[in-house]
Amino acid sequence: MASRLKLIIAYNGAPFSGWQSQASGNTVQDHLEKALAQVLRKRVRLHAAGRTDAGVHALGQCAHVDLPERSLTSERWRDALNAQLPRSIRILRARFVTARFHARFSAKGKVYLYRIWNGEVLPPFEAKRAWHIVAPLDFAGLAGAAQTFVGTHDFAGFAANRGNPPETTARTISAIRVRRRGKCIGIEIHGEGFLYKMVRLMVGALVRPGLGKSPTEEISKRLASRQYAKNATRFVAPADGLFLVRVRY
Amino acid sequence: MASRLKLIIAYNGAPFSGWQSQASGNTVQDHLEKALAQVLRKRVRLHAAGRTDAGVHALGQCAHVDLPERSLTSERWRDALNAQLPRSIRILRARFVTARFHARFSAKGKVYLYRIWNGEVLPPFEAKRAWHIVAPLDFAGLAGAAQTFVGTHDFAGFAANRGNPPETTARTISAIRVRRRGKCIGIEIHGEGFLYKMVRLMVGALVRPGLGKSPTEEISKRLASRQYAKNATRFVAPADGLFLVRVRY
Repeated sequence: MASRLKLIIAYNGAPFSGWQSQASGNTVQDHLEKALAQVLRKRVRLHAAGRTDAGVHALGQCAHVDLPERSLTSERWRDALNAQLPRSIRILRARFVTARFHARFSAKGKVYLYRIWNGEVLPPFEAKRAWHIVAPLDFAGLAGAAQTFVGTHDFAGFAANRGNPPETTARTISAIRVRRRGKCIGIEIHGEGFLYKMVRLMVGALVRPGLGKSPTEEISKRLASRQYAKNATRFVAPADGLFLVRVRY
Repeated sequence: MASRLKLIIAYNGAPFSGWQSQASGNTVQDHLEKALAQVLRKRVRLHAAGRTDAGVHALGQCAHVDLPERSLTSERWRDALNAQLPRSIRILRARFVTARFHARFSAKGKVYLYRIWNGEVLPPFEAKRAWHIVAPLDFAGLAGAAQTFVGTHDFAGFAANRGNPPETTARTISAIRVRRRGKCIGIEIHGEGFLYKMVRLMVGALVRPGLGKSPTEEISKRLASRQYAKNATRFVAPADGLFLVRVRY
């Protein structure tokens, strides 16, 4: 009887071409499915809570896989897969779950963190892990403007059109917490679901006008527009600073 | 008139063959001297407070260089060098100093940090930045034993013989602070001077017997021996976890 294994996965997105499987083979999903095939001697398909783009990191991505046999304990699975994976991808936890659990369809929400390094020099240990902004940001203004996003809105103005548009562009952001620690600003966004590139477009809107004037008005206007933002007005924050923190079930 | 520039440098040691210049050209010193030559169109020599081994990191290495001219401000020097350097090496600060300042001979002390990740899985963001130890460490025992090192001792038992022995192997450790935050243990060591591989041999002695029995007795014995430790008894903690935090002047 098949057994469904739930995996909590962390990865440094810098060396990979995103989550989703590609011909190049250098995606997080490709590396994980290759590791599974090496342990199982059989190809199986992994299902994630959602894709992440090239360069985006995860502290707690979630995925499930149906194993043809339950030959190992979940801890042994974790260790066997980690032994095959590059060090920049790690299974943090593994657990057998019932077939009612689905990494994507059972997800109730996600938490993202966007990190900005606001200082003259980006320390080497922050390279590819934060958006480096040299000009001093108005922290209080940014933190205040971020609250404009909280609630249920039509987020079309903060979504990239992927050719395959979702049924609705209404989404609910339950909380945004903005913190500063030294030169590092962290923007933590809690939501039920996110549109394509939504977090990076939100952060781009917070920061771009934030260098001086208040972004609050611009955000309200784009939320009210209910249209995909035109290229001229939208600014996508770089992938480097984005972390999928966890998936809520 | 020549001008002496003092540089505070951070680097991720993972991709480099240590500090000191080598034929391979892939050392931190090589990259910095190459950047200087690109800006100056002339080769100049950089003098560091001390070398770091391959894989060892720095949050605040210090070096000085004599420039043939004072054509740029110190901030412009910092930015011009950073523009030439790989992102894993950054000049954090630059300042013109008098010719009495010497990065090595004026140094009054150094602070090192050794990081241990004590848990089953090493998160991807800790790869090459900590020593991964799976077996649970006795934190209180380790923190207590570390204090055995404080004071002036003959540290020959915690030094590697480099063929070119120092005049004396007596050294003074002024303080050791051991902290735990989640699964990360940080050992911060303050000293006037350090012998070759001394910090890594100290940490090796703290942790190796630390997996169960107390290392205090073993450390006292080796401090009293006043002899270079035999290969059989010494254990060098890996470079990955070692950071030169700052140089005191």
